[in-house]
Amino acid sequence: MKIDNTPARGMRDLLPADVAVRDHVLESISAVYRRFGYQRIETPALEHIDRLTSGQGGDNEKLIFEVLRRGLPPEVPPGTPLHDLVDLGLRYDLTVPLTRFYGNNHASLPMPFRSLQVGLAWRADRPQRGRYRQFYQCDIDMIGEPSVLAEAELIEATTEALAAIGLTGITVRVSDRRFLAALASECGVPADRQDAFFITVDKLDKIGWDGVQAELAELGFDRAQVAAAEEKIRGLIGVPAGTLADALSRSVPTLPAEVIQDLSATAASLDQLAKSWTHEPLDWQFDPTLVRGMGYYTGQVFEIIHPDMSRSVAGGGRYDKLIGRSLGHDVPACGFSLGFEPIVDLLSGERPRDALAVLVEGDVPVPDAVAVARELRELAGPGRVVETVRRSGKFGAQLKRLEAAGFTELVLVRSEDGAIVRGEPRALGGDRGGGLS
Amino acid sequence: MKIDNTPARGMRDLLPADVAVRDHVLESISAVYRRFGYQRIETPALEHIDRLTSGQGGDNEKLIFEVLRRGLPPEVPPGTPLHDLVDLGLRYDLTVPLTRFYGNNHASLPMPFRSLQVGLAWRADRPQRGRYRQFYQCDIDMIGEPSVLAEAELIEATTEALAAIGLTGITVRVSDRRFLAALASECGVPADRQDAFFITVDKLDKIGWDGVQAELAELGFDRAQVAAAEEKIRGLIGVPAGTLADALSRSVPTLPAEVIQDLSATAASLDQLAKSWTHEPLDWQFDPTLVRGMGYYTGQVFEIIHPDMSRSVAGGGRYDKLIGRSLGHDVPACGFSLGFEPIVDLLSGERPRDALAVLVEGDVPVPDAVAVARELRELAGPGRVVETVRRSGKFGAQLKRLEAAGFTELVLVRSEDGAIVRGEPRALGGDRGGGLS
Repeated sequence: MKIDNTPARGMRDLLPADVAVRDHVLESISAVYRRFGYQRIETPALEHIDRLTSGQGGDNEKLIFEVLRRGLPPEVPPGTPLHDLVDLGLRYDLTVPLTRFYGNNHASLPMPFRSLQVGLAWRADRPQRGRYRQFYQCDIDMIGEPSVLAEAELIEATTEALAAIGLTGITVRVSDRRFLAALASECGVPADRQDAFFITVDKLDKIGWDGVQAELAELGFDRAQVAAAEEKIRGLIGVPAGTLADALSRSVPTLPAEVIQDLSATAASLDQLAKSWTHEPLDWQFDPTLVRGMGYYTGQVFEIIHPDMSRSVAGGGRYDKLIGRSLGHDVPACGFSLGFEPIVDLLSGERPRDALAVLVEGDVPVPDAVAVARELRELAGPGRVVETVRRSGKFGAQLKRLEAAGFTELVLVRSEDGAIVRGEPRALGGDRGGGLS
Repeated sequence: MKIDNTPARGMRDLLPADVAVRDHVLESISAVYRRFGYQRIETPALEHIDRLTSGQGGDNEKLIFEVLRRGLPPEVPPGTPLHDLVDLGLRYDLTVPLTRFYGNNHASLPMPFRSLQVGLAWRADRPQRGRYRQFYQCDIDMIGEPSVLAEAELIEATTEALAAIGLTGITVRVSDRRFLAALASECGVPADRQDAFFITVDKLDKIGWDGVQAELAELGFDRAQVAAAEEKIRGLIGVPAGTLADALSRSVPTLPAEVIQDLSATAASLDQLAKSWTHEPLDWQFDPTLVRGMGYYTGQVFEIIHPDMSRSVAGGGRYDKLIGRSLGHDVPACGFSLGFEPIVDLLSGERPRDALAVLVEGDVPVPDAVAVARELRELAGPGRVVETVRRSGKFGAQLKRLEAAGFTELVLVRSEDGAIVRGEPRALGGDRGGGLS
């Protein structure tokens, strides 16, 4: 009988080499954020279904894995709506749980609170290459900081974190929802159609200006309004920090001074960061075509892109009105979410393993075998893997298997006239090993 | 309007101090296992409901959080059995997923395969103090090793792991399912009643011999059989390694030689380990009253106890017939599961935080504030937290808040005649700090 051992649809097992890459990425990233004062929290995987479907999650709310209430009768009573059977769901992101967490625990947290979350999320998406129904997310958020100190620090910490895992050559793109709204209003786009307007503008990367114009015309936007907006947007892309304030106030005269100050401050911070940057060049750009999908952003939005990745490496923004929905009163907040899975895909490849094999002949009693391994483990020091392996099959073939498994050194243990003989350490597969000898 | 921000019933949020203790425990334990050659794997939280309810999980199968199929109509058709609505469930342990994982991936894994799993599990248990519906498990398993090398190494690695987190003064208890079966048969307990017999004997710790006798009589066991078994069991508790083989063969003459050899080898390994042990004394004991709950154990079973914990710290055993249910043919296996949550409860208490506060006056522009913090972070080196904090309220009160939050040093940043002035580092709350100065 053939037994099906594949994981549930759209999910996957992670083998030791996969986990090793992930652990390396997570440890490196976490160490950087920790140095900036971010502290890790954890929330349960399950949340009340009402909270998950409150509108904050956008389209993700259609992809919830719903959990059956406990204590239901074995047969469903006629006429029962499906949603009456459900009381919990698996979270689809880490932002919904964070806002509940803050509402529940704010009295025990510092102000501002720097949060680091690394956790699983689940979405019943159509499975496709590189996209899974269970995945890790990595979010950092600063809650309680009204100024762009939050934006500047989140961007800096994230570029440092990416550099720590060798992801350099990135570009930071910055925009502002308040600026986008003022620009659209000035061009005559009514407030209730601005979301649709900017969702199309956001596609500029993929469809070009011609495509954007065509799509906006199709959506019924006025040709003159589109032309006016395009001209302003084109004129502002990539304006440097030193002249940004001037360019913004000339292009969008109704823009509040506060928005101009905030954007200038973030721009100046990025300029200084780029100058002091010791890794590969760090690019940044004011980019009025950047929108970011979530409806809850209220101020600056930003993302990080890398030439080798089609999706953004990280994205985020300010959401000053979201915590209030849980807490009852608004608290300013700003966050960044790293695309953990695409980053891992980009960096994947075996991490070298430096292990010593204690190769034990069959006639060596178990207590002696583990005792020799114990001695060798003490000699090798805390960083090294010392693994006990029993001799089996042809010697040469077993050596090849050990090399393939990442062993770099070997000690043979055998029994001779009743005494246990520990051989000299010998290198395997070149001299990559740390070496006992 | 009061908003309910508490987590789902029986679940909890983990605050930064909670996570810090957990991370410390996990990192310390994982580092030890890694040195023995164990490699971390991960499996999805969701498994097919049929696999979760195949009988392997015992009573835990009644506690599954069940997940609704996707694409069901909004109203349930009359007469639908509840279980028709469910296709997935959240795992209640890490053993069921491990056996599926091995069946799915064995061709890519070394032989034997040393697995380390740290992951969440869910059980819809009645919530009670110290017991939650979502919890971490930590399992190590060796798959493919037929000899007691597995048992000896798993016990050694686990005692080392517990020592690494400061949990010393433990006792290892060892028994064997094959021995228990032979003993019961010799006393006339029929094979099909042995499970019930030993479940009662397992309670000896809690109810004493009088309680065991009374419960066995109530269950209808023959008084003479019980007395015979009790005599044998009493005579074997705590027999030392040197005389264990002799005592076993005299007490249970039908016991296969292989079982005696295996128990003697594990006993001798533990004796040697205890002698070379450099931490607090390590006790071990042959304990024929130890049964361990799960039905799938086929050979030696063991657990580790600590005087400060009512439940065992860790428990496990050999399960040579379980992998076969997934793979189609048997593969010997042995595993150990650490009681991660009770261990964390025992060790909890704040881990010290050594952080430097960059305290920024309100008139310092954001780009300068983050630049000074960046300089200080570079000076402080990679291990230290350097966190930017804005001046607010009375100075003395803010210093007290910073001390309470674990800051040990402070640098004040202010603006003077348009220039940014960085103050000298000053210690906070004694001189626990690493120190920049």
